[in-house]
Amino acid sequence: MPDFGPIERELTGSLSGPDKANDVGSISSEMNWKGVGISLLVIAFVLSLIGLSIFLLSTGDAHHTLGSCLTLDDLFSSELQDQDLEAQWVSDYRLVYRDRDGDLKMLNMETNQTEVMMKNSTFAVFKASKLSVSPDLNYVLLAYDVRKVYRYSYLASYLIYNLQTRSSEVRVTRGAVREDCIIPRRKTAFGQAVFSVYIFENNIYYQPEVKSSSLRLTSSGQDGLIFNGITDWLYEEEVLHSSVAHWWSPSGSSLAFLTINDTLVPKEQLPRFTGMLYPRGHQYPYPKAGQANPEVTLNVVSVNGSTHTTQLLHPDSLQRSELYISMVQWVTDECLAVRWLNRPQNVSILTLCYTHTGKCVVKHVMTSDKWIDRQNEKPVFLEDGATFVMTSPLRIGNLGSFRHLAMMSEQPEGEEVSTRHLTSGTWEVTEILAYDEKYFLSTEAGFSHRHLYRVSTVDPFHRECLSCSLFKPHCSFYEASVSPGIPKTTVHLLSDMSDHVTLDARPKIRELFRKKRRPVRQIRTLQINNQALRVELSFPPQFEESKHECDPGCQQVNERFRLEWADVLVGCDDVIVARADGRGSGFQGQQILQGVYKRLGLVDADDQLSVLEYLVKQPYIDGGRVGVFGKVYGGFLSSLLLLSHSSALRCGAAITPISSLLQNGTRSEELRFLILHGTADANVHFQQTAELVKLLSVINVNYRLQIFPDEGHDVISRRYMLNSLISFFRECFHDNAPVPTETSDLDDDD
Amino acid sequence: MPDFGPIERELTGSLSGPDKANDVGSISSEMNWKGVGISLLVIAFVLSLIGLSIFLLSTGDAHHTLGSCLTLDDLFSSELQDQDLEAQWVSDYRLVYRDRDGDLKMLNMETNQTEVMMKNSTFAVFKASKLSVSPDLNYVLLAYDVRKVYRYSYLASYLIYNLQTRSSEVRVTRGAVREDCIIPRRKTAFGQAVFSVYIFENNIYYQPEVKSSSLRLTSSGQDGLIFNGITDWLYEEEVLHSSVAHWWSPSGSSLAFLTINDTLVPKEQLPRFTGMLYPRGHQYPYPKAGQANPEVTLNVVSVNGSTHTTQLLHPDSLQRSELYISMVQWVTDECLAVRWLNRPQNVSILTLCYTHTGKCVVKHVMTSDKWIDRQNEKPVFLEDGATFVMTSPLRIGNLGSFRHLAMMSEQPEGEEVSTRHLTSGTWEVTEILAYDEKYFLSTEAGFSHRHLYRVSTVDPFHRECLSCSLFKPHCSFYEASVSPGIPKTTVHLLSDMSDHVTLDARPKIRELFRKKRRPVRQIRTLQINNQALRVELSFPPQFEESKHECDPGCQQVNERFRLEWADVLVGCDDVIVARADGRGSGFQGQQILQGVYKRLGLVDADDQLSVLEYLVKQPYIDGGRVGVFGKVYGGFLSSLLLLSHSSALRCGAAITPISSLLQNGTRSEELRFLILHGTADANVHFQQTAELVKLLSVINVNYRLQIFPDEGHDVISRRYMLNSLISFFRECFHDNAPVPTETSDLDDDD
Repeated sequence: MPDFGPIERELTGSLSGPDKANDVGSISSEMNWKGVGISLLVIAFVLSLIGLSIFLLSTGDAHHTLGSCLTLDDLFSSELQDQDLEAQWVSDYRLVYRDRDGDLKMLNMETNQTEVMMKNSTFAVFKASKLSVSPDLNYVLLAYDVRKVYRYSYLASYLIYNLQTRSSEVRVTRGAVREDCIIPRRKTAFGQAVFSVYIFENNIYYQPEVKSSSLRLTSSGQDGLIFNGITDWLYEEEVLHSSVAHWWSPSGSSLAFLTINDTLVPKEQLPRFTGMLYPRGHQYPYPKAGQANPEVTLNVVSVNGSTHTTQLLHPDSLQRSELYISMVQWVTDECLAVRWLNRPQNVSILTLCYTHTGKCVVKHVMTSDKWIDRQNEKPVFLEDGATFVMTSPLRIGNLGSFRHLAMMSEQPEGEEVSTRHLTSGTWEVTEILAYDEKYFLSTEAGFSHRHLYRVSTVDPFHRECLSCSLFKPHCSFYEASVSPGIPKTTVHLLSDMSDHVTLDARPKIRELFRKKRRPVRQIRTLQINNQALRVELSFPPQFEESKHECDPGCQQVNERFRLEWADVLVGCDDVIVARADGRGSGFQGQQILQGVYKRLGLVDADDQLSVLEYLVKQPYIDGGRVGVFGKVYGGFLSSLLLLSHSSALRCGAAITPISSLLQNGTRSEELRFLILHGTADANVHFQQTAELVKLLSVINVNYRLQIFPDEGHDVISRRYMLNSLISFFRECFHDNAPVPTETSDLDDDD
Repeated sequence: MPDFGPIERELTGSLSGPDKANDVGSISSEMNWKGVGISLLVIAFVLSLIGLSIFLLSTGDAHHTLGSCLTLDDLFSSELQDQDLEAQWVSDYRLVYRDRDGDLKMLNMETNQTEVMMKNSTFAVFKASKLSVSPDLNYVLLAYDVRKVYRYSYLASYLIYNLQTRSSEVRVTRGAVREDCIIPRRKTAFGQAVFSVYIFENNIYYQPEVKSSSLRLTSSGQDGLIFNGITDWLYEEEVLHSSVAHWWSPSGSSLAFLTINDTLVPKEQLPRFTGMLYPRGHQYPYPKAGQANPEVTLNVVSVNGSTHTTQLLHPDSLQRSELYISMVQWVTDECLAVRWLNRPQNVSILTLCYTHTGKCVVKHVMTSDKWIDRQNEKPVFLEDGATFVMTSPLRIGNLGSFRHLAMMSEQPEGEEVSTRHLTSGTWEVTEILAYDEKYFLSTEAGFSHRHLYRVSTVDPFHRECLSCSLFKPHCSFYEASVSPGIPKTTVHLLSDMSDHVTLDARPKIRELFRKKRRPVRQIRTLQINNQALRVELSFPPQFEESKHECDPGCQQVNERFRLEWADVLVGCDDVIVARADGRGSGFQGQQILQGVYKRLGLVDADDQLSVLEYLVKQPYIDGGRVGVFGKVYGGFLSSLLLLSHSSALRCGAAITPISSLLQNGTRSEELRFLILHGTADANVHFQQTAELVKLLSVINVNYRLQIFPDEGHDVISRRYMLNSLISFFRECFHDNAPVPTETSDLDDDD
């Protein structure tokens, strides 16, 4: 049976949410690919643009008047690197962040004053690479010697720095996985504790004060087998999309945590090649299709006085060994909302669990004949704990269902909750931010947009866009973090905050772009295969956005700012890059999302092929020089298209491609195929590339491979890798240049 | 400490002999590379030949009158495949072999009659892939389900086929490693037994008759740890160059065998990627520099009646844990010659060991301040057991030492043996075939030649070349196997046998060559770095020989017939291929051989570079299109040259390169580098390529890799690999074609 990830058997289900990582090269920011069934289209067509090339050359120095070429060096320049301000709310009106110089600053929204809390030089002294600030603003927790494990998890050593005395106070045990400082939920006062729990060797330790000794809360932890409070690989990558598997109650009196038992899960071996005389591989639990999943339990431990632990009871209708816990959310200090999911991911049960009894009461059940997406979404509860808001699919005529805000209210007699949709339309609510007056992000202004909205809970549910008029023109993709003190301050915070970010990050980028040729992006909607498919075209010059790895319910074509390796080709090599959101992509309704159900590699490949055929017909495109690129699932689609008969592709590249879905190809003509893979990739095993190149050797297709020995899914040698990609397409398009016998394609571009 | 093989610390020594494998693509016939210190130059320069190209084009259809292009398909055609006749002497005048159709035939030299013993169709029925014939010619031992382990070793199931009854008699235990039928040494009558010993799970089993039950002779065998009668990886690849570590006494009454204990040897992990849901790697003992070597003992077991086992005692001057046994040779039924070697391989002790006492008497000691080569060479004993012939270095004026025949005679009082050289000159004896009248092969006719000679043991040691006038003109490289009944029949046998081989194998090859353009080979001697270095140039058209992987004491430039992938380039792409035997190469005296001592990667690279510089100056060579290729140690040299400043190389390819000797390169211009490696290579670990590509990524050199998942040192997908090599150089030379601005290099070729 091919390896198609731990939940392959559940090709009906996925657990992924939108990807939050942002990254200049957009290579290390990846969606999980395993929870396919979903599959976001990951294909980027790289189309050579002979027409435009000629046009540009015929105007002589037009190149130079448009600015110099965007280079890979630009993408890795400090101006574009490290844009993350690591902003963190510390009270309703105060925000802590790191500015462009790396200094830790606090912005007071009431006074509009900024003060430096800690200079970047201090971080440097401790070689710290991560930080968090205590709620009382007296301490900073600094992580150093950070060693990445999987996508989110890492091991680190810690010290606590006292901002008052300007000295380090405590060094925490080496090898711990941290939890941030306690930041109690909702409207309670900020706590005093600076340091709450940490995980060491898969057990949870509680440390109430900076200098107090710590108390071990669990004892079952075993390296690589039993995980308390942190995730195993599966929960980190596929279920929770985080390495944190513990949650403080609002007052900090109780801690909920998962215990994940991988004892019965078969282990995958990652080879190791370098760095030692006799390199030794690494094993970790990795459930493949048909294999045992980890057993998971949800426990609550009280930390006020006794450390009594209660196990919460899963719904009777789900089998213990075949369930996922995809969401845990405290409602009050005695009650949590928990979402349970069956292994095929087509039954989802939202319960309220009570810490005193361990009992969980079913509040809402969703079922699907395909699979249910967005299982990480936290419902937002009213203080009574009886009314909550979440998104749920709402059927819009015969256009299929779209995710909209639904208010669920408990009926007095304990009947099923009543559901009332607050929004409606052929667009989707993408994220709920806060409840009182319901702040949320949605695609209402267009599938590729994200704007912040506020909606009233009173019929007719008046809705107002808060971000639509900020940063005019051209800012149409927002992420937002609402301060604890909603609703009063939010909007102002948002705009103020944006201004500050602007002050910090924008000028240098603007300067860079003034000097450089940037791709121009166009989003077109094509009527293809009876679907309205959205295609983004990046034309030279001017820059635009892209994102290459993106699968379950993720979206390829949107207006989020992005600048990446392919833009170097667009800016300087007269190349057009096209990205299409075909069936399987998200945020455009359930119909498109679930269109790939049981037709993976068929309808999605077909959509890409149709877009390709449409584009090749354009007069400005040289049909003989067309390439394709994809990552992970997109690597599979790229390989599929490359090896298929019908396509006219000459160049193709795939990063960490999945090959187990690939049937025999028959293409054996002159074809250039570049494959890139880290040999220690824990998500997409090197096995996939090994199987792919075996197939290529059998069907006699030449290829070139670059490996990143002992590197994982996020390749460290990223710059080298991106340079290889750029060089590959440059060379391939150059070599495929037609001998200038006829000049029939001298049409100007559109 | 870098991995440079198990005997790296002994860079002073080597244990390798000439490579016997023959193989059309000359890819699977490889020398071991670990016993470097020696290091044969493995580099083939692939030089693009613009001059000749123009010359050929200017004569119009000259291309076609010379025949069509030699293709990779030709190399893999049945005419060129499987030339090995598997000839086997079965008596003084009878020879068994397989003809071109695969039938097993016996040639009687006395009657000059040939009879079919077994049709190829019978082999096919049993899916047998190996065979041996019993001395009484009644049985054939057939191996099926053969699974390769390392270079020589394999696991197989066996059956014995009765040639009289035309049926299979016995199926031998599955998973056994075979020994051939008993063929007693020297002039005794051929034995009757068809089946003598086999090895099963690292223990030796004795089976006196076809249908008798078998008797276990050892019990200490442990999978992967303790080996009885067969070799571990080290002994197979580096010491004995065979998987057989047991030897029958002349009458078949005793069996000598090695017990190799790898308990203390660290294990190397070979990863596995394909073919199962959770691929599991494989571990095997692999002593690296500074690590424990296996402990080896030599034992003799009597099989006449009791099965008493005697351990032979190693010389006191060698440490038990730090010695090799590099040669075992029975002299009489009670006495064996054994060569013992210290770990640095600079002290070699030849002893006579007596089975009754286990005592070994030192007969001859060789020491070197560098290392001693040819430690596998079997001395040939006179029947008295007191006189023997072996090769030993003989100083020739100030030209250094050359290997010559030495007759060693024991002195009556038990003093050291007296030595008398039977040959002398600036050439080498390459192999001793038989003693009475001393038949041997030598390079006397030229370093690139091998002819069969007979020398008298009576002063003035008259010497006669037996093969020099056979097959005129142009046959100058012989291998020979002398029948048991020397001396009377040998010469005739040789010539008759050759005729038969000719009848079987030549016509089709001749036919092929009539139709194809073949490289023309020239051997030139260049005075470079104060050495006379021999360089072979293959010019289009006409064919010649080559051999790519070749290191300790091996020779690159000789007249052995060879046709390989690079000849496709020579024949059809106007390319010249040059091979140079620089310092470190064999059969040209000790001075050249040992010139690399402690200067690996320096003087040998320098020699190659000098040859390159000489060639680039030739008018017919396009200096902008020069490439380099090498395998294993040659892959290291190729990488070294590619990454060095001084060279003007544009294209380079390396198969299973050794990278641990590579220092940082600095070359970062446009350079094409193809690397090929099987991931389960037990000789050159994939680790070497992993370290190499890491280095390339650091110094920002682009490369392309092709891997052969789970394939070993002898890549199974050889045709695909060779095609990749050919395509790579074609493409690289094509892309580097200069824009035709000037025509200064239009000189004709030489």
